[in-house]
Amino acid sequence: MRAVDVERGEAVFVPLTRSVRHLIDATIRTEVDDETVFAARALIERATELLAAQMIPGSFGVHPTTEGGTVAWGNVAIGIRNPVAPPLVIHQDADGSVHTDVDLGAACEGPPGHVHGGLCALILDHMLGATAHQPGNPAFTGTLTVRYVQPTRLGRVHAEARVDRHEGIKTFAVGHIADADGTITVEAHGVFIRPKKTSAGGG
Amino acid sequence: MRAVDVERGEAVFVPLTRSVRHLIDATIRTEVDDETVFAARALIERATELLAAQMIPGSFGVHPTTEGGTVAWGNVAIGIRNPVAPPLVIHQDADGSVHTDVDLGAACEGPPGHVHGGLCALILDHMLGATAHQPGNPAFTGTLTVRYVQPTRLGRVHAEARVDRHEGIKTFAVGHIADADGTITVEAHGVFIRPKKTSAGGG
Repeated sequence: MRAVDVERGEAVFVPLTRSVRHLIDATIRTEVDDETVFAARALIERATELLAAQMIPGSFGVHPTTEGGTVAWGNVAIGIRNPVAPPLVIHQDADGSVHTDVDLGAACEGPPGHVHGGLCALILDHMLGATAHQPGNPAFTGTLTVRYVQPTRLGRVHAEARVDRHEGIKTFAVGHIADADGTITVEAHGVFIRPKKTSAGGG
Repeated sequence: MRAVDVERGEAVFVPLTRSVRHLIDATIRTEVDDETVFAARALIERATELLAAQMIPGSFGVHPTTEGGTVAWGNVAIGIRNPVAPPLVIHQDADGSVHTDVDLGAACEGPPGHVHGGLCALILDHMLGATAHQPGNPAFTGTLTVRYVQPTRLGRVHAEARVDRHEGIKTFAVGHIADADGTITVEAHGVFIRPKKTSAGGG
């Protein structure tokens, strides 16, 4: 697997991915005539041909970086190269809690004018996982419970999550989504399983 | 709101949306040089300009059709005009249970080579909702609980859901996702609330 250059990746692929997100929005909302749709489609297919000339097999996965880290640029929640991802930009506080603010547009729709409940679940799944995971001490999602308090309007939303408590190999995390007015619309709690370390692992 | 012609929509927009899905996949996986990425991006931006010349304000919502029905073509789970949607094609059996088979590719990735747990939650949220809702008698998701049994490999997956029981205004639905081998990887149960009908509503 080829190590990726983060600086080049951000300079080249972030603008590409942003352009594809704009195209996704226009694809959903366009009202132009058939001939114009066909012309746009021809351009899209030519662009795909150019990009597909050389591709990573399968999926992006996790790539090492030239700086010694790793990136998951294809991730459907946070991937900066995945046009489907909002993408979530997750901020971690000193206490391990996480938060994000993200704009959810036409591509996130469920009920008219509102965010799909399942997309709220996706965001909360990722946020709760992000706070439950610790470097070198991964946690796997056991269960996620999502409670829909009221519909979430499309637009800017805030999501946050924190660890509530640990019990043996289990970590309990909680979180919520709030709309632009600060009203909580969706709540979640999750149970994460932290595999026991072997003594050979150094503690 | 303009009534949409379903036949025209399927003939014109399904191919466009399919082309954008291919572009999304190539955007994630491409390894071409910077100049080729820039050339592809220029084509994508030209396509977006063409499509954006006339657009539905906001989001697609639910449109009436010329045949007297309605369509939610922008829906992030089932929308045939939403390139983010897999899209789920949901089959309903005589007993009201629902099932779907869908290919989940690089754009659905969470853990390397596997479907994001949150995307499994999105699919199950929609499937459980689809079986809980009844024409003329809508149900709203109260809570959704998702249990991750094992990782779900990218590729073809099967999802199904059915109503387990009704208790007053509550409908309890259950469902699961299985991989290509038929192994259940994610289970879900949900509680849906059916608002009481007013007597003025005719029963």
